[in-house]
Amino acid sequence: MNIPKLPDILEAAERIKSQIHRTPVLTCAGLDEESGAQMYLKCENFQKTGSFKFRGASNAVKCLKTDEAARGVSTHSSGNHGAALACAAAIRGIPAHIVVPENAAQPKQESILRYGGQITHCAPTLEARETTLAEVVQKTGAVVIPPYNDFNIISGQGTAAFELLEEIENLDALIAPVGGGGLLSGSAICAKALRPEIKIWGAEPEQADDAKQSLDAGLIIPANPNTIADGLQTSLGPLTFEIIRNHVEDILTVSEAEIIQAMRTIWERTKIIIEPSAAVSVAALLRYPKKFIGQKVGIILTGGNLDLDRLPF
Amino acid sequence: MNIPKLPDILEAAERIKSQIHRTPVLTCAGLDEESGAQMYLKCENFQKTGSFKFRGASNAVKCLKTDEAARGVSTHSSGNHGAALACAAAIRGIPAHIVVPENAAQPKQESILRYGGQITHCAPTLEARETTLAEVVQKTGAVVIPPYNDFNIISGQGTAAFELLEEIENLDALIAPVGGGGLLSGSAICAKALRPEIKIWGAEPEQADDAKQSLDAGLIIPANPNTIADGLQTSLGPLTFEIIRNHVEDILTVSEAEIIQAMRTIWERTKIIIEPSAAVSVAALLRYPKKFIGQKVGIILTGGNLDLDRLPF
Repeated sequence: MNIPKLPDILEAAERIKSQIHRTPVLTCAGLDEESGAQMYLKCENFQKTGSFKFRGASNAVKCLKTDEAARGVSTHSSGNHGAALACAAAIRGIPAHIVVPENAAQPKQESILRYGGQITHCAPTLEARETTLAEVVQKTGAVVIPPYNDFNIISGQGTAAFELLEEIENLDALIAPVGGGGLLSGSAICAKALRPEIKIWGAEPEQADDAKQSLDAGLIIPANPNTIADGLQTSLGPLTFEIIRNHVEDILTVSEAEIIQAMRTIWERTKIIIEPSAAVSVAALLRYPKKFIGQKVGIILTGGNLDLDRLPF
Repeated sequence: MNIPKLPDILEAAERIKSQIHRTPVLTCAGLDEESGAQMYLKCENFQKTGSFKFRGASNAVKCLKTDEAARGVSTHSSGNHGAALACAAAIRGIPAHIVVPENAAQPKQESILRYGGQITHCAPTLEARETTLAEVVQKTGAVVIPPYNDFNIISGQGTAAFELLEEIENLDALIAPVGGGGLLSGSAICAKALRPEIKIWGAEPEQADDAKQSLDAGLIIPANPNTIADGLQTSLGPLTFEIIRNHVEDILTVSEAEIIQAMRTIWERTKIIIEPSAAVSVAALLRYPKKFIGQKVGIILTGGNLDLDRLPF
């Protein structure tokens, strides 16, 4: 397997620099007092398209050779990766064909359209998504950009942790949520290379704990998710599994109620909007305080896209 | 009348610097495209205690002489000024007695308590607020810190506009909401002194348009508010009226539906939480686009405190 290393992430950071937002790192004295840890919130909810996914998509699209790019890009996505890819493609001036399950959240579909993506609907099953994507590729010749199990995607996602460690010195720990594992993989490679003593934690809903199960079993267990954290419903891939089991301390799981409470806490105390998937890392810190007490903890808030008509509180 | 001038605001800025957050200025390419203006959002929702009110309170409390301060401070407030004063008093190590109408929003009361303020409840009328405050002052000897019609408060509130103009050059216009007029007064004095060609606009709910009526009539018309923008229910005072009619272009009024829509737009597109009162300025820009098209417009987002259990959408 061709696994990205720190230089690949540094190259990605340089490559995408002019396209991405360098997102702020937020602190909250009140939350620190309550949690006993110093939290450094890397606000990828402020990233272009509203999630960290734009980093990987931007890197992958920029890495395409001219003749590949001319064919356009394609993926299947119910959310943030689709919008991110549409935006990255629009910047390069090439078409993006996004296969979207017909039950995907309306705001996320609107976001794909806003960035100029072309939507093809399919039934809401993994099989239908893959079949429909194959048809789209057959018809258009577009290059498939996968959502997480991919060298360039992982390298791009790792750039958020790079910025965080560049800005905040001496972090003791870093928490990122895990769905397919692209963000956690990229973060772990980057942070461990820059600061070997740092502990990397994954965070996952109890009701979508396939990454935790996979680490415990030593092989990839497919996801069977039932969670409000709609960005964390995918299973690990061979690349992300390999990276995570080599670099990550453990996966911390949290309940649905804890996710919703953590989301509300962040909204109320820091005045920023994060989606449920982003709240999972905060929930993990609050649920396992003994692991983090007295520490400087980096937390990647992954995104801020959600349907305001369907809030869980 | 003793009206603050630019040097007073600069002194206040220096005085409160170590206590306040220097809040970020946010831009949003998508919103600019839709509105035809370049919007620079000064994020006072990220200010300590969640609103710009902390600037004025911090300045007023710091200006107290030692023997005055020893008596503690007091005010009546249904919201942000109370929490701001409690926090400023706590930092100086003196008590803050806040008279709060019994129907005030629960989260705002909790915020006053969190910062160590001591609450005395009263009936929800202006008369009851003033009578109860007088009783509290009689009993405690505390110094009353008024919410807006005050030299030190206006000077403190003006520091947000100072930071904004320091950071963003060549602003064509500045919009701030108007309730009692402390923020709009301070902003107008500061911005007009630094950049005489800038146009200052007030923004106000149609259903609490007493400032608009007052300017048109040439005298203070008391408020008779019925608006979701709970921070804008107060009437102008002699000081703020005088400053506003000398420096402000006009007051732009917006409907309740426009306030709610603007608030939702900011939440969805910029991923930050603003309260209805803060959305009024954005609503004004969106309702009167011809006044702002092609311009660089500073907007002070005043606060982010609201009850997530009672969202208007």
